[in-house]
Amino acid sequence: MSHNTFGHLFRVTTWGESHGVALGCVVDGCPPGIRFTLAEIQAWLDKRKPGQSRFVTQRREDDLVKVLSGVMLDDDGETMITTGTPVSMMIENTDQRSKDYGEIARRYRPGHADYTYDIKYGIRDYRGGGRSSARETAARVAAGGLARKVVPGLTVRAALVQIGKHRIDRNNWDWNEVNNNPFFAPDPAIVPVWEDYLDGIRKAGSSVGAVVEVVAEGVPAGIGAPIYAKLDQDIASLLMSINAVKGVEIGEGFASAELTGEENADEMRMGNDGNPIFLSNHAGGILGGISTGQPVVARFAIKPTSSILTERRSIDADGNNVDVRTKGRHDPCVGIRAVPIGEAMVACAIADHYLRDRGQTGRLA
Amino acid sequence: MSHNTFGHLFRVTTWGESHGVALGCVVDGCPPGIRFTLAEIQAWLDKRKPGQSRFVTQRREDDLVKVLSGVMLDDDGETMITTGTPVSMMIENTDQRSKDYGEIARRYRPGHADYTYDIKYGIRDYRGGGRSSARETAARVAAGGLARKVVPGLTVRAALVQIGKHRIDRNNWDWNEVNNNPFFAPDPAIVPVWEDYLDGIRKAGSSVGAVVEVVAEGVPAGIGAPIYAKLDQDIASLLMSINAVKGVEIGEGFASAELTGEENADEMRMGNDGNPIFLSNHAGGILGGISTGQPVVARFAIKPTSSILTERRSIDADGNNVDVRTKGRHDPCVGIRAVPIGEAMVACAIADHYLRDRGQTGRLA
Amino acid sequence: MSHNTFGHLFRVTTWGESHGVALGCVVDGCPPGIRFTLAEIQAWLDKRKPGQSRFVTQRREDDLVKVLSGVMLDDDGETMITTGTPVSMMIENTDQRSKDYGEIARRYRPGHADYTYDIKYGIRDYRGGGRSSARETAARVAAGGLARKVVPGLTVRAALVQIGKHRIDRNNWDWNEVNNNPFFAPDPAIVPVWEDYLDGIRKAGSSVGAVVEVVAEGVPAGIGAPIYAKLDQDIASLLMSINAVKGVEIGEGFASAELTGEENADEMRMGNDGNPIFLSNHAGGILGGISTGQPVVARFAIKPTSSILTERRSIDADGNNVDVRTKGRHDPCVGIRAVPIGEAMVACAIADHYLRDRGQTGRLA
Amino acid sequence: MSHNTFGHLFRVTTWGESHGVALGCVVDGCPPGIRFTLAEIQAWLDKRKPGQSRFVTQRREDDLVKVLSGVMLDDDGETMITTGTPVSMMIENTDQRSKDYGEIARRYRPGHADYTYDIKYGIRDYRGGGRSSARETAARVAAGGLARKVVPGLTVRAALVQIGKHRIDRNNWDWNEVNNNPFFAPDPAIVPVWEDYLDGIRKAGSSVGAVVEVVAEGVPAGIGAPIYAKLDQDIASLLMSINAVKGVEIGEGFASAELTGEENADEMRMGNDGNPIFLSNHAGGILGGISTGQPVVARFAIKPTSSILTERRSIDADGNNVDVRTKGRHDPCVGIRAVPIGEAMVACAIADHYLRDRGQTGRLA
Repeated sequence: MSHNTFGHLFRVTTWGESHGVALGCVVDGCPPGIRFTLAEIQAWLDKRKPGQSRFVTQRREDDLVKVLSGVMLDDDGETMITTGTPVSMMIENTDQRSKDYGEIARRYRPGHADYTYDIKYGIRDYRGGGRSSARETAARVAAGGLARKVVPGLTVRAALVQIGKHRIDRNNWDWNEVNNNPFFAPDPAIVPVWEDYLDGIRKAGSSVGAVVEVVAEGVPAGIGAPIYAKLDQDIASLLMSINAVKGVEIGEGFASAELTGEENADEMRMGNDGNPIFLSNHAGGILGGISTGQPVVARFAIKPTSSILTERRSIDADGNNVDVRTKGRHDPCVGIRAVPIGEAMVACAIADHYLRDRGQTGRLA
Repeated sequence: MSHNTFGHLFRVTTWGESHGVALGCVVDGCPPGIRFTLAEIQAWLDKRKPGQSRFVTQRREDDLVKVLSGVMLDDDGETMITTGTPVSMMIENTDQRSKDYGEIARRYRPGHADYTYDIKYGIRDYRGGGRSSARETAARVAAGGLARKVVPGLTVRAALVQIGKHRIDRNNWDWNEVNNNPFFAPDPAIVPVWEDYLDGIRKAGSSVGAVVEVVAEGVPAGIGAPIYAKLDQDIASLLMSINAVKGVEIGEGFASAELTGEENADEMRMGNDGNPIFLSNHAGGILGGISTGQPVVARFAIKPTSSILTERRSIDADGNNVDVRTKGRHDPCVGIRAVPIGEAMVACAIADHYLRDRGQTGRLA
Repeated sequence: MSHNTFGHLFRVTTWGESHGVALGCVVDGCPPGIRFTLAEIQAWLDKRKPGQSRFVTQRREDDLVKVLSGVMLDDDGETMITTGTPVSMMIENTDQRSKDYGEIARRYRPGHADYTYDIKYGIRDYRGGGRSSARETAARVAAGGLARKVVPGLTVRAALVQIGKHRIDRNNWDWNEVNNNPFFAPDPAIVPVWEDYLDGIRKAGSSVGAVVEVVAEGVPAGIGAPIYAKLDQDIASLLMSINAVKGVEIGEGFASAELTGEENADEMRMGNDGNPIFLSNHAGGILGGISTGQPVVARFAIKPTSSILTERRSIDADGNNVDVRTKGRHDPCVGIRAVPIGEAMVACAIADHYLRDRGQTGRLA
Repeated sequence: MSHNTFGHLFRVTTWGESHGVALGCVVDGCPPGIRFTLAEIQAWLDKRKPGQSRFVTQRREDDLVKVLSGVMLDDDGETMITTGTPVSMMIENTDQRSKDYGEIARRYRPGHADYTYDIKYGIRDYRGGGRSSARETAARVAAGGLARKVVPGLTVRAALVQIGKHRIDRNNWDWNEVNNNPFFAPDPAIVPVWEDYLDGIRKAGSSVGAVVEVVAEGVPAGIGAPIYAKLDQDIASLLMSINAVKGVEIGEGFASAELTGEENADEMRMGNDGNPIFLSNHAGGILGGISTGQPVVARFAIKPTSSILTERRSIDADGNNVDVRTKGRHDPCVGIRAVPIGEAMVACAIADHYLRDRGQTGRLA
């Protein structure tokens, strides 16, 4: 879809800049009768919020979400019930630390979108990255909170599986550990390794990339569509739309290049309960663009942020060579905060395809 | 976009099944005044055609493309000129080898879309994979032939960079070699290695995955859009829509997870000609979703085809356990034929974004 | 939607020019399991076909439709069953009467799209009007034939209610009469009046406008959506997309400007069968963009064709003043043939909204 | 387009209910560099505001618009400059007069969307009509304020041309009069007639319909597209999406049914300045879906509001027969306030097509 909207029946439009008045989203196509509380949505936003450990940017943002439309309050005065009309959600920007942007307004930070925005639009909101700031993802996470409610029985979870060269041991995978450490690591053994490593990165004013894995369980079989509305295609598209993401995989992903057909095919058998069973899940829960009923598994790679304390060579808007060093708050591994964002994107893609299959009023739900 | 259409201003709709009467595409939004010959389009289709070496399926298809609408013939009787109306292209299916599909009609081949189509639609064209067949990609390649003409100065080329565990040596990269071997390999040194390896795979009735790299040169800076119309997002979406693709990367891709901010940022300097120069291209030609003017670089991983001669465990539509062995023509590495398809997808994505920027009549071209 | 496609879940793309090789449509999103015969589709095309009376153009077109994809043949060898993949239909152009277009190629016929196409595209297929020819509507009628099958119990019928100043007497309305005269008139008393009147128009080489009324019965209540996906909005959009249509009404239409709130509101009562009953249908079956369960009633006005035998003042592509007289076959009242086209458009709009509500696989059907 | 969004490149999404916290719109695709002041947008909203004469509802709404994103302030601290990112505008609801909705919550007002919303969604925001309230159109008018700025030289004006059976005399048409009376009448002679007539309607607690005419000047020739992206089609679609609109016409509209080809065709001649001149404008500025460069002329009919003080027969949500009388503030002719809304819709349609033609960054402007 175009510009600042994604989805076909569960449609999300986001708006807002880093240092503007507010940012938000309009969720159009959310079926009626979905029940949720503001606290539930806020909880997802809190997970994404910066400043929660020394390993992420110290920018303080309350990120308090408001629901402006599309719901009626239940008699408990707390539960919101969607009415089928657009759900508009807004997050006011509170920490717009006043500072002099004079220097950065004209200089292109290497690896940022400064240069390309100027080339494309001829004008750019340079304050905190403007529209290209990761602030925008707060709106995605709010939308994802609703999306999770659309598909009955759906669970979408993510975890960080790699920072720099340090990967988790998949044999240690424990979802219960994910919220017990500042990295969303599913492997407790990796936590001290990452702490050490990231402390070094942080003190050097440097940054490093990461990989996130998202797993969606409870996805009904038959969701998606062949050819250009493939479920994996839409997941890839949305994950790739997250700031700084440079790669996306489904199931075995790039590793499948090294596999043989015998190794890669997921065999099937009838289960004792009369339902088909897959004996493996190399496909990541999707065949021919359509869900198999197995967990949907996606991974994405986030590049290191280009905002580092070392001077880099660049140019300015007037065509002069300059050296640029990013001042201020610093994010040694933006991949950490990408975990709840990745969850939100996968939840939205699944909700959209669920509604394509079931209809916009979702009466089969 | 939805179902069987992609693109926002350069819109491609494909249709057709493997063993139906014909297949084709409608290219809507192609600007007027584009000049091309049927031979040019046919050349791209010939590159994708099966049966050209022992390393790909021996199915014989002529894949002769016809242009049914949207053009006027120039006075030379050969050059077609687009008029701005939909260009409908059709390829008739000629090698519909008659065979008994009775067995496969009810059995789900592991790793194929048989099961998911049946779950979703309750009915499935089992002949040759129906709509999920790679035959569909012939229509993409035809559309890509037009897309290449839309952006003045655009060149889109691809090469195979990995089969199984065997990767090319990037220091040997030579575009001139790509059409000199049956693998579209840019490194002549890898050719005998792959020949040996794939002969083994072929004789064993097995299959193996691969990785393709696509490079687009001549992409004007400023093409793309932030947030949900990112150029890299649309490229990822289209590459992921190709049959059997399980992963997509832009620029450094997954390798960026291991890089530091210093290593990954592409520094800039003013060139002697007064134009900005990037000193590296880790970003793959795209920053913030918008092209930088550098080459756009994308890679994608193709899983091994599940059509292998070894029996695999599966079920049938009646809920019985069965063992399935794919008979007939065999494709040891479907990744090879994905090379021209990847090119076509990237060309279409760039053409679409070019027109979003320049307008549907493309008068700035 | 854009360009040459309409619909959101039931999506129709048409292609082709008047004097090209062929024309056709791709119907994407047709649910699986729809059963139809080629003869059923052909019957709708035959109704639209020119040359069936002296009151329409004498151009001879067989308009034989072929189905190229998206179906499997049932065991009877005749019934087609949709599989959920795109249904491509094609009509080859057979009566491309060769003639010298030299004169008309450069001259703008007043009231035609010649001038605007040239201004927009800088190139134009002048043969028989090219893409702007009413030939394109054959593809719509084919798509409408499928759309009728999508909604169980749906009936869409249309009739001509006005030619020039001569209107039918609504008290005489009899659907059984519609196919008994060359005008699709529901009032047998108007037939001789129209015959006389149109014979005069025809002999004078002139033309005249008309009004068509479309009535859809069996539209389930609750189809449509508020604000920008109103059912009446989409019907209006599609009717207005038909060549030469200049006005569209729903229910009372423009007459509602003269009514009071008391006269216009449709009162309700509970019926004896426990279902709500509307005591009138001024709304034309739609309230707030959503169907009420009453018949959906739409009307549209068709201007007189500008192809007349009298010379009109115009200019040519070189900026010269010229006088233009349309030669060749002549259509005194194009509104007549608009009757089946209007039906097709309303059927498509309803099918699309039905699927938005029920889901693309339409399993609730 | 779907649900609560319209437009293809100039995309407007509206949200909000009559008695919710706020309502607003997100304008996505507005080109960068558009300069405007809040006062300019507010002026259009003020024109639409209720309570400005005794002939419209006395509901008091300040309708103060805020711009939340997508702009930077110029040095004058007042002029906003668009940056190419989404422009989010919000209007807080202030006059949410507290009242007991208990009765109306369960009763279906004849002619309102109460019944159809309940049938479709099973839940409905009954406060002030919820999403189906004409409050939503405030967001359209705000978006229209921006749209007017997108096309250089564009002027879009509208006037009321009919109330009940009383029509203006077109010979008296004077645009300067439109803002001199409470009806937006272009004919001063009709004003006392309408005053008398509407006073009677108002005192009787009744209501009546109306017709609005919109004229857009400065539309460049060549805007629009054939077949399903016709400019007139999109104008018709958007006008029909306005609450209570039941009919739409372009140029001669329904009157064209009574014209002959000789009368209806707009002849052309070369002007003294070397530009083509049309000798009449029966077409309403659009041929084959593409603008001719003449003024674009559209009309639409608004039904009388169903909110009247006379009891009407209806049912309630429990299936009981009830009698419903609308209490509270009353709008004798909703058509009056439709004038600025119609302008906004036509401006948005033209801006969208302008950008399709010129590209989303509108650099040709």
